[in-house]
Amino acid sequence: MNPLELIMHPVEQDLKRYQTLFNDSLCSDNPLLDMALTHLAKRQGKRMRPILVMLAARYAGRVTDKVLHAAVGVEMLHTASLVHDDIVDESDMRRGQASVNALWGAQAAVLVGDYLFSKSMQHCLLSGSLGVMELIAKLGQDLADGELLQLDLTHRDTFSDEPYYQVIDRKTAALFFTSARVGAMLGGNGEDDKAVEEMSHYAHLLGRAFQLRDDIFDFDWQNQSGKPAGNDLREGKLTLPLLYALQQAGTPEDHAMALRVRHGEATDAEIHRMVQLAHEGGGIDYATGQMNRLADEAIARLEPGRAPVEVTDALRAYAHFVVGREL
Amino acid sequence: MNPLELIMHPVEQDLKRYQTLFNDSLCSDNPLLDMALTHLAKRQGKRMRPILVMLAARYAGRVTDKVLHAAVGVEMLHTASLVHDDIVDESDMRRGQASVNALWGAQAAVLVGDYLFSKSMQHCLLSGSLGVMELIAKLGQDLADGELLQLDLTHRDTFSDEPYYQVIDRKTAALFFTSARVGAMLGGNGEDDKAVEEMSHYAHLLGRAFQLRDDIFDFDWQNQSGKPAGNDLREGKLTLPLLYALQQAGTPEDHAMALRVRHGEATDAEIHRMVQLAHEGGGIDYATGQMNRLADEAIARLEPGRAPVEVTDALRAYAHFVVGREL
Repeated sequence: MNPLELIMHPVEQDLKRYQTLFNDSLCSDNPLLDMALTHLAKRQGKRMRPILVMLAARYAGRVTDKVLHAAVGVEMLHTASLVHDDIVDESDMRRGQASVNALWGAQAAVLVGDYLFSKSMQHCLLSGSLGVMELIAKLGQDLADGELLQLDLTHRDTFSDEPYYQVIDRKTAALFFTSARVGAMLGGNGEDDKAVEEMSHYAHLLGRAFQLRDDIFDFDWQNQSGKPAGNDLREGKLTLPLLYALQQAGTPEDHAMALRVRHGEATDAEIHRMVQLAHEGGGIDYATGQMNRLADEAIARLEPGRAPVEVTDALRAYAHFVVGREL
Repeated sequence: MNPLELIMHPVEQDLKRYQTLFNDSLCSDNPLLDMALTHLAKRQGKRMRPILVMLAARYAGRVTDKVLHAAVGVEMLHTASLVHDDIVDESDMRRGQASVNALWGAQAAVLVGDYLFSKSMQHCLLSGSLGVMELIAKLGQDLADGELLQLDLTHRDTFSDEPYYQVIDRKTAALFFTSARVGAMLGGNGEDDKAVEEMSHYAHLLGRAFQLRDDIFDFDWQNQSGKPAGNDLREGKLTLPLLYALQQAGTPEDHAMALRVRHGEATDAEIHRMVQLAHEGGGIDYATGQMNRLADEAIARLEPGRAPVEVTDALRAYAHFVVGREL
């Protein structure tokens, strides 16, 4: 089996039922809304988060209808936040397709995102658990908080790691953490289950690793998506590879240049120089090391014998997949 | 007692506890978020909706801590939707203060609204009722759906009442309906209580009346807020007074002009002519009649003897206040 097959194998049937539930939710008798929802239904990604909900449920027990609804709820909240992030980042593209704001304007995109947030709540409610709802409400708060922190960072003049991890914990790791936690809570014996803690830790670490990979990727000169390196820099976002290199090897000129990047005032040549610094100043190596360490720590949280071998294997493969390792 | 005193009298102590809970929620250790929340805390309106939650709770029983949390949750969801509406309408002002998007940009306003949505969920969860959560999730969906329908209407070329009522039911009446329903559910004996149905009907009718008053107000040449008449028209929104006049007294030229208003292509003189038509074509009188009928129907839902006299009196005064009557 290839890595994706290995990951999906224990939840293959569940994933089909999930997909039907998800697609059935993306329609409306409101014409403008229906167009936007149909568009979003077409551009679904690799479904990393709903798969995690289901694998965590299997790790702790089994995939019930309540688990499936929670998986739909989590993915819908994720979709809502992507629609809103595209407004914040003024992105025209998402997953190779035009963004909602590019097609119907920021005004409609605000409302489509809001609609999806509420739809997400309705699905999560079908899990019948107030504990799940609390986690989802906290997640919604974290996602907005993380993006706002990131906006705020563009006004700061220091380059430490700490605010970076605060941002990625809220905007990325929280989504993985919540996916796994609600899956394990609903699939197993509720919140006090040891499997819930194991899955929560596993997913938090992996969520950080996922964002690190994304951030490292942005410094790749031969970016697969065809985008030039330094896309995050163009949005004023300084990520770990560059932050590390600035601290370790940055000259005062580099620091001044990095601040211009944050303020959106850097030239193309300066962006190029910053990408170069991340490589030459050891930032890429450092961030890659951190990412691999996080993935290994995540895997170490999997308790042997807790779940059927195929489930633990899938969770291990999932961790490798997140950091882009060959199996 | 003046009308507002009469309305607040049965819930005066509760309102103080509500206010503490609400204000305590509007702070954050995220600097940008905290600034925006502090700004929002300063511009609180007349608290019509939380007062309705509490009066409905008293109508059905009593105001408990759960009722107070639901009141905070409803008002926070309302605040979130206002922050997002100001992006959609590109409004610089709200309640006499600068809007969040005017002060910190649309990007931050999207995220501040999202944060408030999630905060609202957290408060509603403290009501401990999945039934309440379902109503709140449905409300969030209705609010977004109503605004999207309104955006979509700018592309239509008919002037019937039906889509108008669809929009105001979702964007305004749903908020009143949900406020009263969750209040009565939590304050009384749960969902099957007759008081819950009475309060739900009362509030739905009153919510429609509230929006009608707002829409009529916009045609007032001597608008108290100092804004020129026809503000809605400048945003491409045709409301009941004009829709009625167009149907009853509009010439083909008026119809063509009304479509230019919808498309945002009308001149100031044309806006002026449309305001005039609403008056001369009987639209203002018609809409005022409808509004008064709705308020009277709402009052007729109040069952004598169901609640202490002071509570029924307050709910009657509330209805009069909504339509701007002297008592």
